[in-house]
Amino acid sequence: MQKIFEIQHKDPQSKARTGVLKTAHGEIKTPVFMPVGTQATVKTISNDELLGTGAQVILSNSYHLYLRPGEAVMKEAGGLHRFMNWQKPILTDSGGFQIFSLARLNKITAEGVHFQSHIDGSKHFLSPEDVIRVEHTLGSDIIMPLDECVKYPSEHDYVKKSLKITHDWARRSKVAWEAAGCRNDYGLSSILFGIVQGGVYHDLREESAKALVDIDFPGYSIGGLSVGEPSQAMYETLAATLPHLPEDKPHYLMGVGFPLDLFEAVSQGVDMFDCVVPTRNGRNATVFTRYGKLLLRGASYIRDFGPIEEGCACYTCKNHTRAYLRHLFNADEYLAGRLASLHNLTFFIQLLASMRRAIEEDRFVAFRREFESDYNRIKES
Amino acid sequence: MQKIFEIQHKDPQSKARTGVLKTAHGEIKTPVFMPVGTQATVKTISNDELLGTGAQVILSNSYHLYLRPGEAVMKEAGGLHRFMNWQKPILTDSGGFQIFSLARLNKITAEGVHFQSHIDGSKHFLSPEDVIRVEHTLGSDIIMPLDECVKYPSEHDYVKKSLKITHDWARRSKVAWEAAGCRNDYGLSSILFGIVQGGVYHDLREESAKALVDIDFPGYSIGGLSVGEPSQAMYETLAATLPHLPEDKPHYLMGVGFPLDLFEAVSQGVDMFDCVVPTRNGRNATVFTRYGKLLLRGASYIRDFGPIEEGCACYTCKNHTRAYLRHLFNADEYLAGRLASLHNLTFFIQLLASMRRAIEEDRFVAFRREFESDYNRIKES
Repeated sequence: MQKIFEIQHKDPQSKARTGVLKTAHGEIKTPVFMPVGTQATVKTISNDELLGTGAQVILSNSYHLYLRPGEAVMKEAGGLHRFMNWQKPILTDSGGFQIFSLARLNKITAEGVHFQSHIDGSKHFLSPEDVIRVEHTLGSDIIMPLDECVKYPSEHDYVKKSLKITHDWARRSKVAWEAAGCRNDYGLSSILFGIVQGGVYHDLREESAKALVDIDFPGYSIGGLSVGEPSQAMYETLAATLPHLPEDKPHYLMGVGFPLDLFEAVSQGVDMFDCVVPTRNGRNATVFTRYGKLLLRGASYIRDFGPIEEGCACYTCKNHTRAYLRHLFNADEYLAGRLASLHNLTFFIQLLASMRRAIEEDRFVAFRREFESDYNRIKES
Repeated sequence: MQKIFEIQHKDPQSKARTGVLKTAHGEIKTPVFMPVGTQATVKTISNDELLGTGAQVILSNSYHLYLRPGEAVMKEAGGLHRFMNWQKPILTDSGGFQIFSLARLNKITAEGVHFQSHIDGSKHFLSPEDVIRVEHTLGSDIIMPLDECVKYPSEHDYVKKSLKITHDWARRSKVAWEAAGCRNDYGLSSILFGIVQGGVYHDLREESAKALVDIDFPGYSIGGLSVGEPSQAMYETLAATLPHLPEDKPHYLMGVGFPLDLFEAVSQGVDMFDCVVPTRNGRNATVFTRYGKLLLRGASYIRDFGPIEEGCACYTCKNHTRAYLRHLFNADEYLAGRLASLHNLTFFIQLLASMRRAIEEDRFVAFRREFESDYNRIKES
């Protein structure tokens, strides 16, 4: 197996590190925040704008794209990169999370999942091998295996039983991936991660991590967090998981999270993140700044003719005021969610880029302390 | 009164002409299509994108901005240009059309209009003088007087009576405008147009045109068309109106229209147009091409990997396929309406720019014939 990940620098005071993940569509410098483009588009944002935010890689979703526009169209388009005209790396989620949260789930068997489409109720079956096939048709650079994402809270017994299936599917996914020559339908290398599950049970997280490491993947995801558990439980679960993963492989914390979560996870050695928070919250008039969140619908912004954040280099902050954004949200204008999403994506992506610089300069812990002190000043304002 | 309009070239075979309209925020080359930014934003589109379409001027709406964010905010922002960060000219509609179509109208009196806000039901009164004040607070470059836009069809008697009010308001608007020194709140020149009404009655259109010319405005709008009457009735009404307007003043046909309407109106001597068609239709998956309209939700585009229109220089056509747009519309993605609006705005604005070049090169009639022949090929496809 080729070396796809290199650690560049380790923080002397924490487990934080910088690295480079090499994909068929270019290198990703870590730690990294990946915008979510569920349906082959990061909601409201153009590719040009995405590049402007500093995005290095986007996440898309196999479940959604399998249902719509479907594998045949994707194949004919020449894969997702060409379909959406995005030239940088793409990571695809397996769809496990969506099948368990969005679709009407009919049955999980050892073989795979039977489910009904959330769009039209049509019946489908996907095995772990099917999911690898779909991701290879999409032409993703980094692919996730089918897993069962258990809900929070779940009983220890249920989670333990679920792990058996998740690990079996992980094994089968690796076999299917290798059978395809570790390449997608367009002849380019794909990188398969294993996904650690286990709910908030430390013994099960350890068991899951070890089982996946036994199978041996080029990278490891930590799934099933940020599903409703308290932050502290997430942090402790991370601490119970990461020590059991190989240090020299990339660590991806799925679906997380808010700025303070990102700092904690990076300090524990996580390299990759994705989350809908910047775009979903942006569309709901919530924007992130160094000094906390602002709810732009508030009356206090009616006459606030400053930018969302002084010094921010995003298009929104360089061109528009809080008062204008407040008006756009108040008038239900499309541009509102777009401008706020653009700012938030810039904020999250640049926050990780700043963490990377801080790690390189051996000042990550101080940088974190300073950020947390500023950020809490108007938290939930 | 300073000379604000210059005719540059006249077509030898029709009444079409090219000209330059000089405003405090720069020159507008006519004939021109003005994108509609009702609530201080051209729906879904950023200012940078607007500039990329070739937009020279946008239209905004006094009624909407009077209600939200209101005069006080607009004044504090330093006017609409600064509020929305648009540096080129702005034309504002008086709000007459909206008051008569959108608001709950309580009463028209000789003094003005009593109406209830369509947003919160609050009660308001606007006189012609109030409207000039609002437009001067917005800091518009080209302003419209309050008028009564009668619905189609209306009885001859009703329209005749309505003209009395519209002309009286036009006179009062001019007095108010002159009392303000023909300048807005920021010391810049404003240009007041008179609005010809009269329904589809040729005698009333002539009467209205003459009454307004007697008052003497720097430019003339033709209102109350494209409100449901057949195209032929609109064309004939235009023909009954334009000969009674001074040739050396700019002619603005309000709220029109589709490509073939634009050709007919330009051939009769109209210089300025605005319409929501490019953006509204774009959001509804309808895009315009030289060969007619395409309804992008259609199944025929599922595997169509060409651009909306070959050779189109817009961002959408340079970067995305019909298949991708079809997917975005099908998946109810925000980016869909945005990309389609951007293409349509480019199409309409560049269509008028092409007409301008054709007029300058004495080939407008041939250009029109060729366009009509192409456009009808897949009309309403």
